[in-house]
Parts: sequence; C-alpha cells; structure tokens
Amino acid sequence: MLEELKHEVWEANLALHRSGLVLLTWGNVSGLDADAGVFAIKPSGVSYAELRPEQMVLVDLDGRVVEGTLRPSSDTPTHRVLYRELKGLRGVAHTHSTYATAWAQACRGLPCYGTTHADTFRGTVPVTAPLDDRALAGDYEWETGRAIVRAFAETSPAEVPGVLVANHGPFTWGGSAAQAVENSIVLEQVALLALLTEGLAPGLGPIRAPLLDKHFLRKHGASAYYGQQPTMQ
Amino acid sequence: MLEELKHEVWEANLALHRSGLVLLTWGNVSGLDADAGVFAIKPSGVSYAELRPEQMVLVDLDGRVVEGTLRPSSDTPTHRVLYRELKGLRGVAHTHSTYATAWAQACRGLPCYGTTHADTFRGTVPVTAPLDDRALAGDYEWETGRAIVRAFAETSPAEVPGVLVANHGPFTWGGSAAQAVENSIVLEQVALLALLTEGLAPGLGPIRAPLLDKHFLRKHGASAYYGQQPTMQ
Amino acid sequence: MLEELKHEVWEANLALHRSGLVLLTWGNVSGLDADAGVFAIKPSGVSYAELRPEQMVLVDLDGRVVEGTLRPSSDTPTHRVLYRELKGLRGVAHTHSTYATAWAQACRGLPCYGTTHADTFRGTVPVTAPLDDRALAGDYEWETGRAIVRAFAETSPAEVPGVLVANHGPFTWGGSAAQAVENSIVLEQVALLALLTEGLAPGLGPIRAPLLDKHFLRKHGASAYYGQQPTMQ
Amino acid sequence: MLEELKHEVWEANLALHRSGLVLLTWGNVSGLDADAGVFAIKPSGVSYAELRPEQMVLVDLDGRVVEGTLRPSSDTPTHRVLYRELKGLRGVAHTHSTYATAWAQACRGLPCYGTTHADTFRGTVPVTAPLDDRALAGDYEWETGRAIVRAFAETSPAEVPGVLVANHGPFTWGGSAAQAVENSIVLEQVALLALLTEGLAPGLGPIRAPLLDKHFLRKHGASAYYGQQPTMQ
Repeated sequence: MLEELKHEVWEANLALHRSGLVLLTWGNVSGLDADAGVFAIKPSGVSYAELRPEQMVLVDLDGRVVEGTLRPSSDTPTHRVLYRELKGLRGVAHTHSTYATAWAQACRGLPCYGTTHADTFRGTVPVTAPLDDRALAGDYEWETGRAIVRAFAETSPAEVPGVLVANHGPFTWGGSAAQAVENSIVLEQVALLALLTEGLAPGLGPIRAPLLDKHFLRKHGASAYYGQQPTMQ
Repeated sequence: MLEELKHEVWEANLALHRSGLVLLTWGNVSGLDADAGVFAIKPSGVSYAELRPEQMVLVDLDGRVVEGTLRPSSDTPTHRVLYRELKGLRGVAHTHSTYATAWAQACRGLPCYGTTHADTFRGTVPVTAPLDDRALAGDYEWETGRAIVRAFAETSPAEVPGVLVANHGPFTWGGSAAQAVENSIVLEQVALLALLTEGLAPGLGPIRAPLLDKHFLRKHGASAYYGQQPTMQ
Repeated sequence: MLEELKHEVWEANLALHRSGLVLLTWGNVSGLDADAGVFAIKPSGVSYAELRPEQMVLVDLDGRVVEGTLRPSSDTPTHRVLYRELKGLRGVAHTHSTYATAWAQACRGLPCYGTTHADTFRGTVPVTAPLDDRALAGDYEWETGRAIVRAFAETSPAEVPGVLVANHGPFTWGGSAAQAVENSIVLEQVALLALLTEGLAPGLGPIRAPLLDKHFLRKHGASAYYGQQPTMQ
Repeated sequence: MLEELKHEVWEANLALHRSGLVLLTWGNVSGLDADAGVFAIKPSGVSYAELRPEQMVLVDLDGRVVEGTLRPSSDTPTHRVLYRELKGLRGVAHTHSTYATAWAQACRGLPCYGTTHADTFRGTVPVTAPLDDRALAGDYEWETGRAIVRAFAETSPAEVPGVLVANHGPFTWGGSAAQAVENSIVLEQVALLALLTEGLAPGLGPIRAPLLDKHFLRKHGASAYYGQQPTMQ
C-alpha cells in the first residue's frame, strides 16, 4: 500500500544523504498520507547505500506498524507526535548536521541574522527545553516530540518549519518529505551563517521585523513573487 | 535576439553553480549588451541542473522584458540599477556565498588584510547602509540597487568590483558575466581569509597603501604584468 | 596465514582513507586475531593508493614480525600495548584527523556536549598525560601506549572506545578493525561539534548523566534498540 | 632541453592543483637542475586545466629565460633568490592556501603545537618582516625573496622547509618539485591545526624541544625509521 508515498520518502532519504548533512546512518525522513493517517519512514540503522523503497516502514498515527518487516527509525515516536500536534505537516526530517547540531548542543535558539534565514524561517528557530529525568526514563522519543510541540506554543510551525532539540540536533518539516529535506539544508546553512556572523559582530541583534517579513513573504503566501509560481508551503 | 549574450550568461550561471558558491537556487548572473541597452538574466527559481540558454530572460534598462517566457530573477531591479548607475559594468553576479554573506550579515565592510584581496579589490569592499522602512515597503530590489550605488559615492566600482548588501549578501561585477562570477569566487575566498585573519590577530589594520597599490596594479591597468597579456577589466 | 584478517585490515585501512580523515600516509589500522595472539597492521609510509592486502604485516603480541616483508607502521608498539592491556579490543585505528588532533594538541579531554557523542562514547574522551624526557628518549611508541593505558585507569575502554594522545592525535578501537575506523569517524565529528559548541556557549558543562546513559544504552548492551539488531561492541 | 625536469615540474603543478590548495591560478611550482643552473617554472596566469609540459619556462639563476615562449610566473624572481641563497633546494612551491595565508596575513610565525607539525617542520615556520616602501617600489618579487632569506638567518631551511610571507602567503621547498608540493600540503594542514588549537587552548605554548626533535628525527636524517627507507630531504 501507499507505494507512491514510500517511493517519495525513499527518494527524500537519499536526497538527505546526497546533501552531505548525514554521517553514517544519522538521519531519517518520513512522509505522511494524511487521509490514510499513515506515514512512511526510514528503517533504523540501515545504510543509505543499501536502502530500497520497499524497506520504508508504514506506521499509523497511533504508532502501529501497518506494513514493513524492518524496525522503523528509533525516532519514529518523535515524528508521530509532530504529525499529530503540528497541523499541516506532510514531511519530517531529522539529522545531526554539523552547525544546526552545534546550536542545539549549545541549547540556543537560532536568531535570524539575515535574509537567507528570513527566506525560509520567519524568525528565531526555537530550541526545546531539556527533558527532565522522568521524561528521559519514560518514552524518550515521544517526550522529545512533546518538547518540540511545547517550543511552538507561540510560534507557527508553518512559518518556522524547524526546531533544535536541546543537546541533540535539528528536526525540520514541510509540505512534503522533499520539502522537509530542503528545509534541513537551509537550516544547516543559516546555522553556519549565524555562527560566523556572531564571530564577526558580537552582540548583534536579529534583523528588523520589516526586513524579516519582506523576505519571508517574498517566497511564501499569497503575495509571493519568487520563482515561476507561488510556493505552496 | 542576442543569442551569444544569452549563451554567455547561461554559461556564467553554470560556472557560478560549479564554483560551489550557490546552494539550491540562491544566485543569479546577468550580462549586458551596452549597445542594445539590454541584459540577459537567469529566470527566477529555476534549478541550475535544468537551466537552458534559451531560458535566459532579456530585460531592457527601463525594466521591460523584451524576450523570454519565464519570470526573470527577483533580483532583476538590483541588476538594472547597477548597469544604469555604475559605469562600465558588463556583468553582475549575486550569491549568498557563506563567508561574504557572514560579513554582510555582520553589516561590516570587508577590510583588505592581504595581497590576495588586493589583487582584485583595491581596498575595503563596502557594505551598504540598511534600508529604511519606506524602502523596504517600496520597490525593494530597486532600493537595494540604490543603496549599493550610494556605497560607491567615494569608491570606484572598477577598482572595487563588489559590495556587501547589509543583512543580505554580496553582489559582484566585471567586464563580462564570466568576470563577475570570477569576482564572486575571489570575494568569497578573501572574506574567509579576513575572518580567519581577525581571529589570529585581533585589532590588525588593513595592509599599507603601497602594498595594496602594488598588487592591484600588478594585475590591472596599463602597467599590469601578471599573466600572458594585460587584463582588461 | 590469517588471510581473512589481512584482508579485513586492508579494507579497514582503505575505509579510513575514503573517510577523508587521513592526509598523505598519516594513519594506520590494525586488527587482532586473539586466538593466534597476532595482529595485522599497515606497513609504514606506504600510500593508500598502492596498498595491497598481502602487504599487511603480521606482528605477535611480543612484537615479533611473524609475516611480511615490509616494515610495519612506526606506531606498531602503541597498537601492541593497547591489545595487551585494554581487554576485548579487536581493532585499533590511528589518524591525525583535524578536529580530534586539535583537541589533542590543546591537551584537553573531549567533553560530551550532546547525544551524538553519547551514542558512541559514554563520557569524556580522555587525553593522555604528556610523556616525560625519559619516555621520549626510550621506546617512544611503546611509552605512548603506556600513557594511553594510564588514561583509562578509571574509564572503561569498552564504553569510551578512543583517546587523545597529548600533542599528537587520536587513537580509537572497537570489536573489529572496521569498527575502530567507524569510531575514528565519530570521534572526528564530535570533536568538531564540541569545538563549535564551546564557541556558541562558553562555559557550558557536559550533558547530564541520565541523557548520556540513555543514548549510550540505546545503541549498546542488552537493552539496545537502535538498528535492526543489537550492536555487539 | 631538460625535458625530464619540465615534465616533473608540470606534474608537480598539477599535483598542487589536485591538492585543493590553489584557487583559480593562484599558485606555482618550480624545479631546479643544479648542474645546469636552470630551473623550470609554470608560465604566468595559465589555467591548470590547459597546462602542458612543454609550456614550462626554463630560467637560469641570473634570471634569463633560456627556453619557452610564454612569460614565466610573476613570482619567478622570488624562486630565483631562494635557489641562489638557500642551499640544497631543488623545488619551490607557492600558494595562497587558506590557513597558511591567514597566518601570513596576521603577520605571525606558525608555532609548533603538535607532532604533525614536528614531523615536517623542526620548529616555528617563520614569517617575513614586511617590505618597506623602497622594496615595494623596486624589484618587488626579488625583494620578497630577500625578505625570506633574512627570515632564515637563524633557522635551517632544510629543517624548516617553508615560510610565511607577511601580508601575502606561503612558500615551501624541498629536495624536488614534488616534495615542495607535499610540504605545501603539510603546511596548510598544520596551519589549520594551529589555528584550532589556539581557539581551544588560548595561551598554549609550543611543544617541548625533546618531543619536537623526536618526531622530526623519526622522519629525517640518519636515524629516521618512518617509512620503508630513510627519506632523503
């Protein structure tokens, strides 16, 4: 079932690997069929070189494996929380990409220091609060998803399609698995840019709201005028 | 019309991509036919892998699309201001290359810390003043071009063939689209070198004027003696 | 003799080279046959491009070359101490990889700042104490191994499969030559992440013990649930 | 004449380019036939992709072009001083490689912070004194060579086969053109390592003399025991 979705998610996992963001097997991408209430996700610990479309595991929003013989990614419960709680997501990607992970390890949200950031993320990319001992001892990956949801209490996940999990690394999302991967690529680059910018101008604040809005809305929403047609994130 | 120009501009866009300065579709190159008063420019948001020469859009200096079915780069008005106001330009390139963008985000001009910089840029690469709310709400990309022109009030664009747009990223130019691309490559490298140099020697000043002039004039102008023939920038 | 071991060690040396961790000939991998009390190791100073399986040198745990016409790696005595003193090792790798070497040169142990580190190393990767003049003038490479062993007086080499040799660079190990190489790859990446993390959050402490344990035990030991089967390091 | 030398120098120039140390045409390698008193050097400003062995220019130690139709590298007078004044050199390489150039721009000698450095350079890689106005206005590239020679008043060029030209970039040398290139590769890597080491351990001093000597002499001189035979630098 859902052969097209599995193929898309397989391709998105390969695209993530080609992007250079993933060392060894440290990444995974999923994609949701919202009508079926089912998402396809990479199997755990399988090398990208050997990955095949039919190995994608289908999981429903209650966490049941509905198809697949391999164990799904160990991060599956995190993906599941995001699909349930952050409305409109159709793809989720997770990496340990270098610069985004450095910000996550530093337990710092990623400030918007320029238009490259603003083109994709309308403001600071939030960092989660650290998990307490109870959450660590419980359903850890599910609790990680819950911490992400709490970080978006006052931020729209449609306008800021990514997060930094404290001490861990980034998750990104979008209107498809492919778009989630593209947002991982963008997040890594703006994480690098922000780190360099702080080195060159310690104490700098984020860009002003009118410039932030101008760039975000140049690429998103009804008034977008970048590209050959409005993007539909 | 202007098939040769479109081909050159297409090749320059591909060269920009091959250089590694461009992530996703974040860059564009144009080239001017000064006699015709028309420039060719990359279409907006088209991936480099799919780009073909006949897709280059021809735009005149009053901003009218004179040939092409695709929408030109969203940065077209910036290119147009530069061709109108900075004399002698035949090519313009724009990227979000990592280190040049970091300096732009830091709102700092790029000091000349060595001969690698001096070989191409005769002094500090200026940074623009930030745009005010009126400019942001108006014809934003045109206003960006105007800010660049103001940054060259006391600097020759022939001697400093590039600029950092505050909070945004670099533009470079030259005697052809290909030369604009080469200057983007040089700018990125000297932006990296300057960042590293400041880390190793905080408080260092720029190189002395006689060394700056020696290197710039070794490669440019009537007394140039680098290469097999004088360069004609 | 031990043709399979020599082939594995040859492949592990090539994998180390492909990983990008090794410049010129600055690295070597060995693998132990514990029953035979013999390990295979790269010959000294031979370029990776020319390396062939039959060139691997077989050395016993008393330091005698038992097969091979080439001189073994100059670091052979260090490998030998590790196999004799740190129980359970079946592979050892040595590199001068950039970021791990920077920490080694800084004479600093590598703190655990995130889950990427915790997935492989259960806590700080120790740095050796510098060698004194007597050790430098004596059997230098053997003394280097002795310094490594002393650095593990209170740390389990099975839980922290790597070390930084002060002023020099990293050694890693594992249940096979291939796993030693993989641990070199991980060590280099977490050394980079830690350096960046300190830059973004000066004074940050290591992650808390419950998060460290959660991640290490997610991938190692009887309760591991990452991948398709428990790893057996 | 000297076809073998021209071929070696051509190959060394290509090796320099393949090493990734050279952007655009910013590098050159020469090789000396000491008996003939003639060296072969890359022509100025020719791209590496188009370089052919027969284009190497032969220049004698008095600066006369003895064979070749192209103009030799603009840095030829610097190479010439080095062959005349620093005894035993058979190859010289010049690059603007990123990290070595950053130290040169910072006008700092490169301290020996580890064994990777000590394996090739027996101590600090010196930086030249800046040129004064008279030298800049005179025979600039010759004066650059003179400044290098002055930097070796108390250092053996056989034990420290490279230098940082203040505000400019590195030169390296060796017993052949190929070895000069290899030393450029090493210098770039140890320049990177030193920069990272200072970031991790501000105020750190160089490694102690016994460790420096141990590593240098492990690879050089009568007691060398690295590799399959003593190196003969």
